[in-house]
Amino acid sequence: MNINENYRNLQDSYLFALVAKKVNEYKARNPGKEIISLGIGDVTLPLAPAVITAMRSAVEEMGNAATFRGYGDYQGYPFLREAVCGYYGKKGVFLDDVEVFIGDGAKSDLGNILDIFSPDNTVLIPDPVYPVYVDTNIMAGRSITYMRGNAENEFLPLPDSNIKADIIYLCSPNNPTGAVYDKRRLKLWVDYALEHDAVILFDSAYEAFVRDKDLPTSIYQIAGAKRCAIEFCSLSKTAGFTGVRCGYTVIPHELTRSGSPLNTLWLRRQTTKFNGVSYIVQRGAEAAFSAEGYMQIKESVDYYMENARLIADALSALGIWFVGGDNSPYIWLCCPGGMSSWEYFDALLSRANVVGTPGVGFGASGEGFFRLTAFGDRLDVKMALDRIGGIR
Amino acid sequence: MNINENYRNLQDSYLFALVAKKVNEYKARNPGKEIISLGIGDVTLPLAPAVITAMRSAVEEMGNAATFRGYGDYQGYPFLREAVCGYYGKKGVFLDDVEVFIGDGAKSDLGNILDIFSPDNTVLIPDPVYPVYVDTNIMAGRSITYMRGNAENEFLPLPDSNIKADIIYLCSPNNPTGAVYDKRRLKLWVDYALEHDAVILFDSAYEAFVRDKDLPTSIYQIAGAKRCAIEFCSLSKTAGFTGVRCGYTVIPHELTRSGSPLNTLWLRRQTTKFNGVSYIVQRGAEAAFSAEGYMQIKESVDYYMENARLIADALSALGIWFVGGDNSPYIWLCCPGGMSSWEYFDALLSRANVVGTPGVGFGASGEGFFRLTAFGDRLDVKMALDRIGGIR
Repeated sequence: MNINENYRNLQDSYLFALVAKKVNEYKARNPGKEIISLGIGDVTLPLAPAVITAMRSAVEEMGNAATFRGYGDYQGYPFLREAVCGYYGKKGVFLDDVEVFIGDGAKSDLGNILDIFSPDNTVLIPDPVYPVYVDTNIMAGRSITYMRGNAENEFLPLPDSNIKADIIYLCSPNNPTGAVYDKRRLKLWVDYALEHDAVILFDSAYEAFVRDKDLPTSIYQIAGAKRCAIEFCSLSKTAGFTGVRCGYTVIPHELTRSGSPLNTLWLRRQTTKFNGVSYIVQRGAEAAFSAEGYMQIKESVDYYMENARLIADALSALGIWFVGGDNSPYIWLCCPGGMSSWEYFDALLSRANVVGTPGVGFGASGEGFFRLTAFGDRLDVKMALDRIGGIR
Repeated sequence: MNINENYRNLQDSYLFALVAKKVNEYKARNPGKEIISLGIGDVTLPLAPAVITAMRSAVEEMGNAATFRGYGDYQGYPFLREAVCGYYGKKGVFLDDVEVFIGDGAKSDLGNILDIFSPDNTVLIPDPVYPVYVDTNIMAGRSITYMRGNAENEFLPLPDSNIKADIIYLCSPNNPTGAVYDKRRLKLWVDYALEHDAVILFDSAYEAFVRDKDLPTSIYQIAGAKRCAIEFCSLSKTAGFTGVRCGYTVIPHELTRSGSPLNTLWLRRQTTKFNGVSYIVQRGAEAAFSAEGYMQIKESVDYYMENARLIADALSALGIWFVGGDNSPYIWLCCPGGMSSWEYFDALLSRANVVGTPGVGFGASGEGFFRLTAFGDRLDVKMALDRIGGIR
């Protein structure tokens, strides 16, 4: 009996634990101080009324013999898959509803999708990065190459034809940097993937935050992407579903590798290791895509984006370099005065009583950078910005 | 770019598709006939009132800024983990709440648990069997040995010290056979696992159907099991949650392999590839374990078990050999008159208009056997039993 030895190669992620520890220590030493967090990566506004109404009614259905539902469709109820297709239609992306898989969140699907690929595949991952891309591949023993984000490439690394990769992770709008690929740059990735027989795993969890009409909100807005990309999306940030749990993954019929349609492989994986998402949750998600629901969830997104604008304006006024914030709830700034990520963290905490996330926690290329998020309360954001100005 | 080549070794499961096809063809040829299904493996009674009340209130919480919840605990909310511990306490099994992992169903966890084991581990699986155990290991490229169930061993295969296995699957009460290991026989498996450094994956999804006080409802009722077994359970059949999605997996602290606590490895797997179960669902599950909720879900289980008793009595009166039905919602019978599984299926369908599931669909050792389930409506069950008598 052996365990999966690859687990021994994982590094424990101390980032948020260390942040919490430092904050708690500061609070213990300074009991009177009011700390404001711009580090939070979780939504704070309640669910939209249309979503609540739909879930309320689904709960009642489940308590009634005439309307009770047992096992649903492994891939998600057709009503929700069709709602997702309708949402894509408005982006000019036309999908067959069996190309859409309803799951319990983008994180689960991003991790589990690796089941269908060979462990011998090489992986290309941006740095800084959402740690899930790295850890899931270490668990499977895959070889990882990093592509560096930096101020020069605006934290939007581009393909290098000298580097061979089978699986490529892209996240746009990006977590943690908030940077967004435009169509020209995303096309370079699609062309690279098609040329190298690679598959792009495209994480579009933050697509609802894109304001600029010219920026892509789905990789399938790029010609050829249906032949090389799987798209992962979620209602977590779009509709405040972080505690409700619902996402969707798109695998177009055109996407085949080694002669196998990846849609069929993923369906086989899901029917074998998954039993679908709660009916109540699926009804809530359907309502989020309705005309009424969509207007309501857009209001919450607008609220967060106004926070982001305030943060971006304040940083601009201070002359601090940053990306993100215009089409994303994340703002990625260059620590002022040449401070390291943790130096700036300590300075903000002790002198401004504001908490953010040190960029180096997302990868070596994040050193010297810092993440702020727009998910807080408006008054807190304003108060935090007043205090941040003095730290340089 | 290569796919996971192991997927090519999977056989398509045609069992339920073939059953459906035959039934539909019969209906098309005989439009007036009323078909009764005793093949259904899904619950039919609505959720308990206490569960509905709890989910109703959780939905309202999520619509209110003051009570809204975002991301929960990866491992499940403490309130639900503690409720599960309380349920185990009544069985005389005492768990620490961090030994309990809340998930979206036993099937997901039974599949995903394999992530933490080496692909080189050998696997021992009973035949007939729930196909998920087989397919998940084929996907990982593991070598599988089968242990045959038959009338002689009452479909409860016992360890053979000549066979070496690292991972052992046991399901008791069993799907598909309804057979239940008693403490003596389960102890033989625990001893074998301890001696061979193996891990037992114990599927107790049907434990709520056990009526005989002397039969184990958890493998941890057997001395030593905490050092060699992971237990998977679900609210699907216990509380009618097949469409709600909630289960739990227990990994005791004592269970270590290759020097690593399996609890820690699974926690690492879940924090990396999973984001928890819907808050609303977890509140519903908590209510199912409350005094009021448990009384209500027991009523549904009793209803199904009365169906099972009626089926078992009818088969006994007909002199048909079977196991199950007394402590399980499944009845596994020997097809009368030496018929094969599919011959009996065809005879029942065409001459009695009753549908069941051919045993051979669950593995080669199921040939000549047949599965009936107790999840139907009482009147349907009685009518079906009246008709079955004539088929021999």
